[in-house]
Amino acid sequence: MTSSFNPTPRTLMGPGPSDVHPRVLSALGLPTIGHLDPEFVSMMDEVKSLLQYAFQTKNELTIPVSAPGSAGMETCFVNMIEPGDKVVVCQNGVFGGRMKENVERLGGIAIMVEDEWGKPVDPQKVEDTLKANTDARAVAFVHAETSTGAASDIKNLCEIAHKHDCVTIVDTVTSLAGSELRVDDWGADAVYSGTQKCLSCTPGLSPVTMSERAVEIIKNRKTRVQSWFLDLNLVMGYWGSGKRTYHHTAPINALYALHESLLMLQQEGLENAWQRHMNNHLALRAGLEAMGLEFIVEEKFRLPQLNSVTIPQGVDEAQVRTRLLKEFNLEIGAGLGTLAGKVWRIGLMGYSSRAENIMLCLSALEAILSEIRADINTGVAIAAAQKQLGA
Amino acid sequence: MTSSFNPTPRTLMGPGPSDVHPRVLSALGLPTIGHLDPEFVSMMDEVKSLLQYAFQTKNELTIPVSAPGSAGMETCFVNMIEPGDKVVVCQNGVFGGRMKENVERLGGIAIMVEDEWGKPVDPQKVEDTLKANTDARAVAFVHAETSTGAASDIKNLCEIAHKHDCVTIVDTVTSLAGSELRVDDWGADAVYSGTQKCLSCTPGLSPVTMSERAVEIIKNRKTRVQSWFLDLNLVMGYWGSGKRTYHHTAPINALYALHESLLMLQQEGLENAWQRHMNNHLALRAGLEAMGLEFIVEEKFRLPQLNSVTIPQGVDEAQVRTRLLKEFNLEIGAGLGTLAGKVWRIGLMGYSSRAENIMLCLSALEAILSEIRADINTGVAIAAAQKQLGA
Repeated sequence: MTSSFNPTPRTLMGPGPSDVHPRVLSALGLPTIGHLDPEFVSMMDEVKSLLQYAFQTKNELTIPVSAPGSAGMETCFVNMIEPGDKVVVCQNGVFGGRMKENVERLGGIAIMVEDEWGKPVDPQKVEDTLKANTDARAVAFVHAETSTGAASDIKNLCEIAHKHDCVTIVDTVTSLAGSELRVDDWGADAVYSGTQKCLSCTPGLSPVTMSERAVEIIKNRKTRVQSWFLDLNLVMGYWGSGKRTYHHTAPINALYALHESLLMLQQEGLENAWQRHMNNHLALRAGLEAMGLEFIVEEKFRLPQLNSVTIPQGVDEAQVRTRLLKEFNLEIGAGLGTLAGKVWRIGLMGYSSRAENIMLCLSALEAILSEIRADINTGVAIAAAQKQLGA
Repeated sequence: MTSSFNPTPRTLMGPGPSDVHPRVLSALGLPTIGHLDPEFVSMMDEVKSLLQYAFQTKNELTIPVSAPGSAGMETCFVNMIEPGDKVVVCQNGVFGGRMKENVERLGGIAIMVEDEWGKPVDPQKVEDTLKANTDARAVAFVHAETSTGAASDIKNLCEIAHKHDCVTIVDTVTSLAGSELRVDDWGADAVYSGTQKCLSCTPGLSPVTMSERAVEIIKNRKTRVQSWFLDLNLVMGYWGSGKRTYHHTAPINALYALHESLLMLQQEGLENAWQRHMNNHLALRAGLEAMGLEFIVEEKFRLPQLNSVTIPQGVDEAQVRTRLLKEFNLEIGAGLGTLAGKVWRIGLMGYSSRAENIMLCLSALEAILSEIRADINTGVAIAAAQKQLGA
């Protein structure tokens, strides 16, 4: 007989979801009210302006799509691109490949710019590709590659794209609230994110923001958006500032949670949140390196919120993750795609980015690894991290 | 300065969302764990089998889509239909029109069968249309029209469709768990629903079930599904019984809530839930009719969970709804589409279908209406409802 589900509380240090703050979980469980209730409609407006703060944008069309990050990605592509359009897609990990799928499924043409996994997108390659494809309409790239832990210079990439009369589609799923992101200053046009990474909210929603230029494109399409559910022309009517037009029933409670997590971000201050992610990354890094583990991403491109380290030879990486989960209720992430079996991905995102999580992760990893390999440096990781935390 | 959101608790008697049971809200707020955590994966399996029970099906492909009901609708259409396919779409309310949009946006051809709003789909018209369109591939219809409160005979419609070699796409958003629905016995092929109606869960997920015939169609498509996010070939790999392939991050906490609401349905017993919806409908009806209000749907096609009644002449319907909300924290629904301004829609769905809600609704409505119109029968509604409840 099935019974109520009672999950074992875990510490989430994988690539997302991250730990959700008790305040956010409490908000999630508040009584459901109607999606047309005036109180709910006011809250929607607050969510919009809190999201504008998180994205550092004044874009009027800044909303959470009522589905996970991959639906946010699809929202950007199906609204911005029409069949036959050429899109330069940069791939340096899993998610560039998904962008290509999106372009092709809507009848667009994807021109790929490939970089090694773990490296940032190379701006020179993008520039060369745009010179060779003067009819390209858009450039798409990932700010923070969740599959590798590498950051790309989206400010520079946006400048190059605009110089060649292209709009930009930018994945900020793992960067939003975790590392510097300035949508307006950097000129990103169609931007999507997720709630379960550095916002430390539950998974299921995808914040999206569209520049004026992007909105013009959406309003002046020659063809209808292929998806009814994701058509921003309709969604705008629902989230707009005038009379609301019923589109779908908003995920009420999930939006309570997002509201609370965005409020916590505002209370902490965005720059402070970025700094916290960096400080904690440096402490974790000090500990991991003291233990003898190596980062796969070159220092200047490393994401503070996602730490990819190589697995020591002779270590069964899946077994280590299973033991971390069973013995310490600690989740870290496996490698994805070409990095499967080669790296661990240790997340320090949102509420997971805390000193106590660093201590747990380092001590648990040291305890297990030192049983398997004699050459793991023991007794030094904690001190190294603590020293860095105090720095 | 923005502060934490604290919604005023309401009684939800509109067309959905319905009241969410405290057990479901508590489940929603449980600690988030990873979407690849073995405990979470086991829970996903339980959700699948609980959904099979709710749908009365053995269909292996029975899952909640990670987005609201309108995404469930789109999932069925984009997976089952290919560009150029002819689909007979039955429209007797708002949602048939949305089905047409779905067919057209994916490049299909919609052949419309129109019935008056408030009437069921006419099986004879469907049969005639299929005779005139022997190349039709599918027939799509709504079981319980949320915009009107009318039920259609989907068993009969499925038989007619199959006789003409068509598969069926069936909207059960408002019927699932509220009135008799037997997916396998009735031969429905691609079926979608929502969580926020008679399941009394929070909005945001869309349960979907696909017959073997439907799965064959999806697996043997000539073209790719236009949506990456909704492509069931990919989603099957994520929710399947073998090794899980990462597709998207499941909305963890929303699934906790769905699990609990489905468990409560199993504990009550599906037939008991159907009977409860009917008993409470008859009591509300007795009270409304005693007051002098009239139902717009003929008795034998009336949905017990959604009661559409005409607004007495000279009554400002929006003002009444506003007063119900402000004075009694009670939400009832307005008319939609051609019925806007002409009817109220009073929902008795899931946990909202309770004796105490009937009493509140009748007494609050009587209190306000009798102030506006002298000919409202007062002092009789409660007794009529109570008599029916005791019957």
